Amino acid sequence: MGISARQFEEMEQRVRGSKSAAEKGAEEVPPVHHILLGVDPSLRGTGYGLVKLDGDGPLALDQGTIKCPAKWSRSECLVAITRTLRELVQKHQPTVCAIEGLFYAQNAKTALIMGEARGAALAAVAEGGMEIFEIAPRKVKQSIVGYGNAQKIAVAKMVQRMLKLGEVPEADAADALALALTYAHLNKRFAIDPSQKI
Amino acid sequence: MGISARQFEEMEQRVRGSKSAAEKGAEEVPPVHHILLGVDPSLRGTGYGLVKLDGDGPLALDQGTIKCPAKWSRSECLVAITRTLRELVQKHQPTVCAIEGLFYAQNAKTALIMGEARGAALAAVAEGGMEIFEIAPRKVKQSIVGYGNAQKIAVAKMVQRMLKLGEVPEADAADALALALTYAHLNKRFAIDPSQKI
Repeated sequence: MGISARQFEEMEQRVRGSKSAAEKGAEEVPPVHHILLGVDPSLRGTGYGLVKLDGDGPLALDQGTIKCPAKWSRSECLVAITRTLRELVQKHQPTVCAIEGLFYAQNAKTALIMGEARGAALAAVAEGGMEIFEIAPRKVKQSIVGYGNAQKIAVAKMVQRMLKLGEVPEADAADALALALTYAHLNKRFAIDPSQKI
Repeated sequence: MGISARQFEEMEQRVRGSKSAAEKGAEEVPPVHHILLGVDPSLRGTGYGLVKLDGDGPLALDQGTIKCPAKWSRSECLVAITRTLRELVQKHQPTVCAIEGLFYAQNAKTALIMGEARGAALAAVAEGGMEIFEIAPRKVKQSIVGYGNAQKIAVAKMVQRMLKLGEVPEADAADALALALTYAHLNKRFAIDPSQKI
């Protein structure tokens, strides 16, 4: 079920345009991260995924959704998000975090609640001392599936293949794993459109 | 410069309408908090104020603004907010927090960034185990100055009087102290329009 190094290479080409190996070799090499954290924050279901990069391709160390039932208060959810992410950072020691980029919510109230979940997540991750990059949802879909309007299930299935997972990951966890994988793609070589450090 | 117990009483009356002492006595008494934290969150300048309530009226234990210069990244600001509030909670051990209520930002992007600051603040405060209440800015102005559209300087000057401060507090810190004082007013007796727990 897993994908080959060649397929991985092809995925990068899709988001980057084609360049010769010689051109690539001459470019600046950004710092290499071996353990990546992806986070897709939301108040009731923050997805997270930890990906290890080594010679054999990407490997999922951990993944899941921080589920906060509707009966929990907003502040209880924020504590669950911040604590869970802090524990994951301490356990796996990632050196970089990719988080879903700013999107424009339907209205200011939705954006404010969305922002609160992001703020709790970002504070916990940033306290871990790692760099944080935003990647837009469209770019993740384009990188993983090759199509910026891809459906969620297509992303999840591709994530499953790339990480050789026994099952299709849950939607929120899949998005988080996809963020980490996209970061790896975009930053393996000089990016024409890099993710934005925040 | 300080205000008398009678003036304090009058302020409560303004936001609550008049009731006889007998009516009040028959009402349910909410839990009494002696150390209150007020927080007015924003990415670059989160105001905080700690107020102690005792027999001699309210007293300011601590106040200030968590200033985050424009050159700091968003995540650096969020870490500063979360760390500073956590330290203040550990130092002063407040039992309740009043935070500026949801307001409707001009647009979703502003609301999202505002929300991030709120989320970092709320997570740090909620981890301290205390209850958190939202109070709308209009209600704070009404409670402190007696007029929902009062100017910021009028709030700051009234806060100075109420807490017998040597100087007019900075705007953000004054708003935070005003939140704590308003919570004390609204919850001293059964509130007709209580602050909203979040």
